[in-house]
Amino acid sequence: MVDPMGSNGCSRTVTRVLFCGPYWPASIVYTREYLHKYPFIQVDEVGLEQVPDVIQNYHICIVKNRRIDSDIIARATQMKIIMQNGVGLEGVDIGAATEHKIKVARIPGCTTGNAVACAEMAIYLTLGVLRKQKVMDRAVNQRELGTPAGETIYGKTIFVLGFGAIGYELAKRLRVFGVKILATKRNWSSNTLPCDTEVLVDKKGGPEDMYEFAREADIVITCMALTNETIGIVDKKFLTAMKKGSCLVNIARGRLLDYKAVLSHLESSHLSGLGMDVAWMEPFDPDDPILKFPNVIITPHVAGITEYSLRRAAKIVGDVALQLHAGEPFTGIEIVN
Amino acid sequence: MVDPMGSNGCSRTVTRVLFCGPYWPASIVYTREYLHKYPFIQVDEVGLEQVPDVIQNYHICIVKNRRIDSDIIARATQMKIIMQNGVGLEGVDIGAATEHKIKVARIPGCTTGNAVACAEMAIYLTLGVLRKQKVMDRAVNQRELGTPAGETIYGKTIFVLGFGAIGYELAKRLRVFGVKILATKRNWSSNTLPCDTEVLVDKKGGPEDMYEFAREADIVITCMALTNETIGIVDKKFLTAMKKGSCLVNIARGRLLDYKAVLSHLESSHLSGLGMDVAWMEPFDPDDPILKFPNVIITPHVAGITEYSLRRAAKIVGDVALQLHAGEPFTGIEIVN
Repeated sequence: MVDPMGSNGCSRTVTRVLFCGPYWPASIVYTREYLHKYPFIQVDEVGLEQVPDVIQNYHICIVKNRRIDSDIIARATQMKIIMQNGVGLEGVDIGAATEHKIKVARIPGCTTGNAVACAEMAIYLTLGVLRKQKVMDRAVNQRELGTPAGETIYGKTIFVLGFGAIGYELAKRLRVFGVKILATKRNWSSNTLPCDTEVLVDKKGGPEDMYEFAREADIVITCMALTNETIGIVDKKFLTAMKKGSCLVNIARGRLLDYKAVLSHLESSHLSGLGMDVAWMEPFDPDDPILKFPNVIITPHVAGITEYSLRRAAKIVGDVALQLHAGEPFTGIEIVN
Repeated sequence: MVDPMGSNGCSRTVTRVLFCGPYWPASIVYTREYLHKYPFIQVDEVGLEQVPDVIQNYHICIVKNRRIDSDIIARATQMKIIMQNGVGLEGVDIGAATEHKIKVARIPGCTTGNAVACAEMAIYLTLGVLRKQKVMDRAVNQRELGTPAGETIYGKTIFVLGFGAIGYELAKRLRVFGVKILATKRNWSSNTLPCDTEVLVDKKGGPEDMYEFAREADIVITCMALTNETIGIVDKKFLTAMKKGSCLVNIARGRLLDYKAVLSHLESSHLSGLGMDVAWMEPFDPDDPILKFPNVIITPHVAGITEYSLRRAAKIVGDVALQLHAGEPFTGIEIVN
């Protein structure tokens, strides 16, 4: 339990919520819809560049893909809580927020269906890479039939790099496709693990097993948070350890992958395909050389963006705003500082 | 056991195999590869239009998407067996073949991985429709992020129209996505049904339950053979019975769907999406009005076309040729007449 109001909560007539930037447009639409009966909550959206100029007026900040560094935090003099409309908080300087007595929070993926939605998207991208989505599209346009030949998930060895909430939902689904599942996780003894993990994962490992698992897998799916430890974790050493002709799917964060290493392993055909919902810079340049490879596919960071999860997240954000206004404890979020 | 040789088998120095038409190009490549050590088997491919002119020279015909009617069969004076490089035999006049003492055969989908591959493709198309593949592509190109909002398979009611080998593999996989599964089949008492069907299907029905199931489903996936009974089975009546906003995936044969009815239900947005690996005419006109809808996606009839199934089918076709040449009984195929 926290006291989100601090000492000045009761004096506020309007609680102001700031959504950073124009992306994930439905998030603000649904949050406004949820809050439309409460005129004392104001929900605004500004462009990513304007955030530093207006942040001093807001009590809650929804970061989306805005980097919130210590400079911005220093200006956020009325801010009580900085939160993600989802899971990833890699852009927030949590230390600086703590120093300024601002809470930082995520919405756990298991409560909004985010993990389920991301797991489904990982399967979609995996199938898209195995079936060669862009080559299929070209075949249709050129009136070809029965080509390209693709691959099935069936029979493959899949390495789930980072066995968290998404990895679990993914393994549960992939299991019945008829695959061998390898997974790494920092701490397998965590009591948050579901009890059927044993039957879902054929080989469990820690970070030290990463390269051995990469050597064995036909498909690697990255499902971990972006932190100082994981940034660029899929680097030249990792990609070179991967089997020749294997493929990679990234459902988590773009910068888990080392861009140059991925590019050169696509050029050499060491990687036979890449599917990604996330990229190094977002939105990603549609003319980036990496997207020119016939077996690289990308989706616009929508893995968790479903009608259901948007409504759930909007309710959680809306409730946080109402709770902050009323001086009540927060529900539905995970405060990380 | 059949005697494929008839009376004139032993006199043949070369057994000739005809692949009809240029489509599914890998099928002839892999069959030739499998047979390259046997100079007494000749494998040719001709264009669809040339088939009637040359068919009298061949002993085995692989039809692919060539219609083989009674006129062509009458010319096939040396023909011993007409077969599909897969399952669908809807283009072959089986009665005429029987009259001319020509065997007609398919390769059962369960032996080549065809059913598994098609089930995976059905899931790919379902996810593609739910996530709005073409809208996602446009978002990437327009540097949008976090849009469009999609839907998950999770929570949906799915109607498997035709619960055969593909339907079974599909239900097995969809089950763990967290769905309700409805399925129809002519005869549920068939002893070819796997024993876990009970736990895979929530509601079983016969053809008479089709409209009731359509009313309940969020997604309909057609998985049945094309026959005189099933042609146009997804017609105006069926589509109108489907829920407003539901979607349709066709993994079986294009003409199971009534083109005009599908078009008008897309125009009215009664159907929110359509995913198909097969079409009314193949190859399908890439400029067909149906492909202009933002939530219609098509793949070039490759659901069963994987490296693995191509190699398996090539071995079966190759073995049939060798068996015919040697006067041995056929293996690996299902003769239907």
